[in-house]
Amino acid sequence: MDKHDIYETYVEKFHEAAAGGDTDLLDSAVKVLPNLNVKNDKGWTALMFAARNGHANVVKLLLDRGCDCEVINSTGQTALGIAQFWNQHKVVELLEAPPSSSSSSGPVLQTEPGVTNFLCGSPLDRRAEKRKDKKWLDEALKGSSVEIISFHNLSPVVKKLPDLTTKGLDAEYRLMTSKYADLSVVFHNQTPAVIFLGVDPSGEVPWFAVDVSHVPEEKIKDIHPYAEIMGYRSIFSFKKAEAAICGQARTLLAWHDRYQFCPTCGAKTTIEEGGYKRKCTDANCRSLKGTHNTCYPRVDPTVIMAVVSPDGKQLLLGRGSKFPPLFFSCLAGFVEPGESIEEACRREVFEEAGVCVGHVQYHSCQPWPMPASLMIGCIAHATSTDITIDHDELEEARWFSRQEVIQILTSQHPQRLSCPPEFAIAHQIIRSWVNMTSNL
Amino acid sequence: MDKHDIYETYVEKFHEAAAGGDTDLLDSAVKVLPNLNVKNDKGWTALMFAARNGHANVVKLLLDRGCDCEVINSTGQTALGIAQFWNQHKVVELLEAPPSSSSSSGPVLQTEPGVTNFLCGSPLDRRAEKRKDKKWLDEALKGSSVEIISFHNLSPVVKKLPDLTTKGLDAEYRLMTSKYADLSVVFHNQTPAVIFLGVDPSGEVPWFAVDVSHVPEEKIKDIHPYAEIMGYRSIFSFKKAEAAICGQARTLLAWHDRYQFCPTCGAKTTIEEGGYKRKCTDANCRSLKGTHNTCYPRVDPTVIMAVVSPDGKQLLLGRGSKFPPLFFSCLAGFVEPGESIEEACRREVFEEAGVCVGHVQYHSCQPWPMPASLMIGCIAHATSTDITIDHDELEEARWFSRQEVIQILTSQHPQRLSCPPEFAIAHQIIRSWVNMTSNL
Repeated sequence: MDKHDIYETYVEKFHEAAAGGDTDLLDSAVKVLPNLNVKNDKGWTALMFAARNGHANVVKLLLDRGCDCEVINSTGQTALGIAQFWNQHKVVELLEAPPSSSSSSGPVLQTEPGVTNFLCGSPLDRRAEKRKDKKWLDEALKGSSVEIISFHNLSPVVKKLPDLTTKGLDAEYRLMTSKYADLSVVFHNQTPAVIFLGVDPSGEVPWFAVDVSHVPEEKIKDIHPYAEIMGYRSIFSFKKAEAAICGQARTLLAWHDRYQFCPTCGAKTTIEEGGYKRKCTDANCRSLKGTHNTCYPRVDPTVIMAVVSPDGKQLLLGRGSKFPPLFFSCLAGFVEPGESIEEACRREVFEEAGVCVGHVQYHSCQPWPMPASLMIGCIAHATSTDITIDHDELEEARWFSRQEVIQILTSQHPQRLSCPPEFAIAHQIIRSWVNMTSNL
Repeated sequence: MDKHDIYETYVEKFHEAAAGGDTDLLDSAVKVLPNLNVKNDKGWTALMFAARNGHANVVKLLLDRGCDCEVINSTGQTALGIAQFWNQHKVVELLEAPPSSSSSSGPVLQTEPGVTNFLCGSPLDRRAEKRKDKKWLDEALKGSSVEIISFHNLSPVVKKLPDLTTKGLDAEYRLMTSKYADLSVVFHNQTPAVIFLGVDPSGEVPWFAVDVSHVPEEKIKDIHPYAEIMGYRSIFSFKKAEAAICGQARTLLAWHDRYQFCPTCGAKTTIEEGGYKRKCTDANCRSLKGTHNTCYPRVDPTVIMAVVSPDGKQLLLGRGSKFPPLFFSCLAGFVEPGESIEEACRREVFEEAGVCVGHVQYHSCQPWPMPASLMIGCIAHATSTDITIDHDELEEARWFSRQEVIQILTSQHPQRLSCPPEFAIAHQIIRSWVNMTSNL
């Protein structure tokens, strides 16, 4: 039996235990399975099996261990939808939004944390008040408890974990962290950009990022024998917490990489405040006084929207001119000066597809560190359906039925159409529309 | 009888007509009163009087003419709250959220346009596809139907309307618009920054903004005899549509003012694409290729939040160290790289006031052109109440009861505490909390 088969067998046992309400077997399975949201070939998770058969104790156990109740199976059902259909009332209660912890009334008083997309949710406390404390920063950077991550031309330096079957398991790559002493090749006669990222939840471990672009690639292994420079897209194979830390670092390093001169006077600038400021070296420059933004890192607000047809039954997706074949996604674009989020949604959808949008609802957001976007995800309600494409922006745009969207989301579309994977907010807002319009 | 008394008399008659259901009298009053949301000394509007007495026909007439149903009186009631209290069911129906125009189900299918704050809602169609069409732009700028607005060191050039009593009436200042021919003093031997703002709803009138900072102040009257340079805060006395246009222009001109050199190589940059791009003049510069943001205008996402206490009964407001005495507002701060909107809210509230925040709800947003913020307004639900102030940021922070917040909003606080005026999103999100927790 090879590793792959062993894994499949564990998954099967895990699902059987959930379906049968066998909490002992479940407890053992949980110990060996790193991903409790693992699906069978019809897209069912353990949570769905437990919900189907009304095992409230198992549902509670799985929820307590962080199982994702938003996962949908191949026919577009969530665990909640399944429990509702089979009248498993206790399970429905558990899966519905947790009740407000406060005793007061009104729609504003919920305290649920809300949606946290991939690339959000960093465990680090940024401790912004330490950024001006050079002594503290220097001691933290050179201390023994530090974790320093490295980037080479904005690609993270990772360690490839040896001998690990990756299918359905944990990520294959991990961010590599080092101590200051390991980085002599980086700091030798150099002053690379160093960013203070924050302190871990224990309060004991400061995290930093360092730009190692000046170290020749072949010398990277001098830092650590497993070290490799991966393309920046390796960030999507990281665990959620690592990806969020990596994203924060990459956006800041990209800013330092591209903003080395004062845009107001053209003089050199220097890095300050733990990497959160750049200061002009010309003492007479206007950028040293007044209200402006030239000294601070950029974050570019961007709208990305699931556009719903006026009858609520279809979703508008488009293919950018640089997209791979058969790949569709949400329309998106930068918020312009003087625009609200809602106005930017309406403008972009009309510019790109000729479709008019009325009401716009905020859904959630996602920092996108390539290089510095804040993707603001919305559900946009179209008031017209005729499509006129701007061919500079889009190659194609189409209305899709709910059924077809589910086929695309679950990689079961007859023409093999695809869409962004789960780590992208586009996937999340498309799926949210599918869930909100569920019919069994 | 002076102008002020005549005006007061009209307001009184207008309110009486609404209270009595006299639509004929109301129609006459409407013709002479520029502001139909005018309040009496207890903060009541005509809409409230009509709602109190159940005159559904008057309510409909006032709503059709754009009366604002979100206005609150001195005791924190809206017209809807008043109608509910007095059981005026027909009026309640009219004042409640307009029904969805679509026939389908579910929470995502509303099509109401949502909140539009001051500085949003520009009537111009940006026509981004024209930005690369130099010939079209040049003809539009020099054509006879153009409207060109001017800025002197980022302050709008306005015309002060002579002989107008301003109390409760329209704004005193208007953006000054010119034709190209009027601006010979501006364009003579100069190439000032020119921004294409868009085309008016008729499609016939292109709007541009021009930087006239190089024209000496005393020569501004050569453009137009009523022309004056007002501080940038004059934007808040403009009508909503003018303010939005002015905001778009100011943010772009502020960007051109501060970003004249390539931040990647330090070479000069030139203005391109109708003002929406700056291009490095060094043909070898990295900024001419690859994915980056150095060539495009900045918009800085900022969070601003009404922080509600765990029991839902109090609101946290703070006084920045540079605020005028007795002035309180919402906490706010820039979104950092790698952060979601919700995370930025939690970080800022904890940093500034030591209060923990759980659930964060998006409310609405507002572009803030001083110089380039996108203020993202949220309702943040605190999970703790103890306050620890960061004295670098705040001078004071306090929990206020709903009653006290109403006193502050309506300028009736016994200690004369005040808060931002209606044009600021802070005011709108504070008022939204008051409305959402209404009790009569």
